[in-house]
Amino acid sequence: MTTSVGLHNYLQEQRDRVETALHHVFPQGWPIPSKLREAMDYSLLAGGKRLRPILALAAAEAVTGKEETSLRAESFACAVEMIHTYSLIHDDLPAMDNDDYRRGRLTNHKVFGDAMAILAGDGLLTHAFYVISQATKSGVPAARVLAVVEELATYAGLSGMVGGQVDDMLGEQGITALEQLEKIHLHKTSDLIAFSLRAGGHAAEADDKQLEAFGLFGRNVGLAFQIQDDILDLTGTEEKLGKPVRSDERQEKVTYPYLLGLDASRKRVASLTKEANEALLQAGLVMPGRLVEIAEHLLDRDH
Amino acid sequence: MTTSVGLHNYLQEQRDRVETALHHVFPQGWPIPSKLREAMDYSLLAGGKRLRPILALAAAEAVTGKEETSLRAESFACAVEMIHTYSLIHDDLPAMDNDDYRRGRLTNHKVFGDAMAILAGDGLLTHAFYVISQATKSGVPAARVLAVVEELATYAGLSGMVGGQVDDMLGEQGITALEQLEKIHLHKTSDLIAFSLRAGGHAAEADDKQLEAFGLFGRNVGLAFQIQDDILDLTGTEEKLGKPVRSDERQEKVTYPYLLGLDASRKRVASLTKEANEALLQAGLVMPGRLVEIAEHLLDRDH
Repeated sequence: MTTSVGLHNYLQEQRDRVETALHHVFPQGWPIPSKLREAMDYSLLAGGKRLRPILALAAAEAVTGKEETSLRAESFACAVEMIHTYSLIHDDLPAMDNDDYRRGRLTNHKVFGDAMAILAGDGLLTHAFYVISQATKSGVPAARVLAVVEELATYAGLSGMVGGQVDDMLGEQGITALEQLEKIHLHKTSDLIAFSLRAGGHAAEADDKQLEAFGLFGRNVGLAFQIQDDILDLTGTEEKLGKPVRSDERQEKVTYPYLLGLDASRKRVASLTKEANEALLQAGLVMPGRLVEIAEHLLDRDH
Repeated sequence: MTTSVGLHNYLQEQRDRVETALHHVFPQGWPIPSKLREAMDYSLLAGGKRLRPILALAAAEAVTGKEETSLRAESFACAVEMIHTYSLIHDDLPAMDNDDYRRGRLTNHKVFGDAMAILAGDGLLTHAFYVISQATKSGVPAARVLAVVEELATYAGLSGMVGGQVDDMLGEQGITALEQLEKIHLHKTSDLIAFSLRAGGHAAEADDKQLEAFGLFGRNVGLAFQIQDDILDLTGTEEKLGKPVRSDERQEKVTYPYLLGLDASRKRVASLTKEANEALLQAGLVMPGRLVEIAEHLLDRDH
């Protein structure tokens, strides 16, 4: 399957829109120390697929079928990218994964030093909640915005992304079971993707059934995305991925292909995507098609 | 001036109350990795004055004069202590201040390792926002809770506590002006204390004038508290402080006594406290007395 021209254009437009919005997340006139601002911008504005914010915007639009609904989700979209960025900055630290490169550029701490990288991460994490709190100005009711605060703190928190990072770190010496690997990816990756979709849903005042479908869609797409990452590390090219390939093997990381083989891993990606799409199609959304297309596109990507 | 029996008992009672509440900030049934929980508890339940949460509770009570109003501020009180604790854990890291001891015990990273200390800090910071979001269950209106989210993200964020930490780190080699030192302390210490009081005010649905007075009171008391810390490092005993004295001198840190002398530093503490109390007394609070007593007690402490 190849990406349709329509989807390709949509993703490009939304990426541009997210880039523009991310340039405005720090309020003018705030006396932010310039080195801190530089360090945050370095990682926040480093490009990337912007998958999470695009999913938040697309989820909001799916509820009503109206493009303008997605405007209400813009601050949530920015916040989730800030959370994603902070987690990458902290994960790359020498005390954690000790990575020198990310998306083909030096990691934050290699440029700004460990202390500034820690503080840039803390700053992005804290400021994500500020950005969320501003959503009432786009017309989202306070109770919905507060629900998004609660969900971000849950999905990105102790039993979500941070917890997944701890499990990953502690398990690194000996993950053997598929169940254990899946649990880590669910929390390290899926939780924040599920949050993105649910936040978009809240912006559009989705009902409980729709929010649940967004959560399941996000869970599955996140897991499929991670398996696809593992597959691409084995089968992709450095040129397309913008990072060294076969790094999992060199680091003796336990991955889906390592546990299941390539073929079964590919089948798992397909079945997770199918289940995700079915959940969406049964949730009474006005326009689920775009999200279904995005899920299928992710399944088929080569970078 | 000595602490009255009444105030002494009040502070002890509120400390106990805060300790109990802090034991319940992690929801039962959440699958939090046990090592992460242990690392967070190690620092969060390490005792201390609990000044910030007590100020939040006392501010709420000051608005209505009713003790039960302070119940509505309990989740804000816990959240501010979690934020304070995360900031200490991250500040103590080898990449930052590289401290081995805190409150007479090994620092978090000395016990749990640098990676877990980073994640425990990230977890406490994230979960503080979860705890705040629960305040609607105590009867605080959603719009007020959302205001507290926005204020925490501001006071603890890029132009607040995190920004102050950056300024402190970058300025360490050469702070010469009093103004520069004061700016750092305002953001590193005062901002979170001002937040504590304003959050308590929001819990009691304080009006704008009262919130402003709480903010000024917190600003001044925070600054006075920091100057008093600098004074005690010079004049206190290791036994009372629970940490080595004269460490500022050994580390060649620029402090208020270093810039102003001991006498002028003490006068500054007194004048800041006076201004703080006057602001409170003019804000139309039903019961400002307790906060005034606390401010005077802080001015006179020996540990």
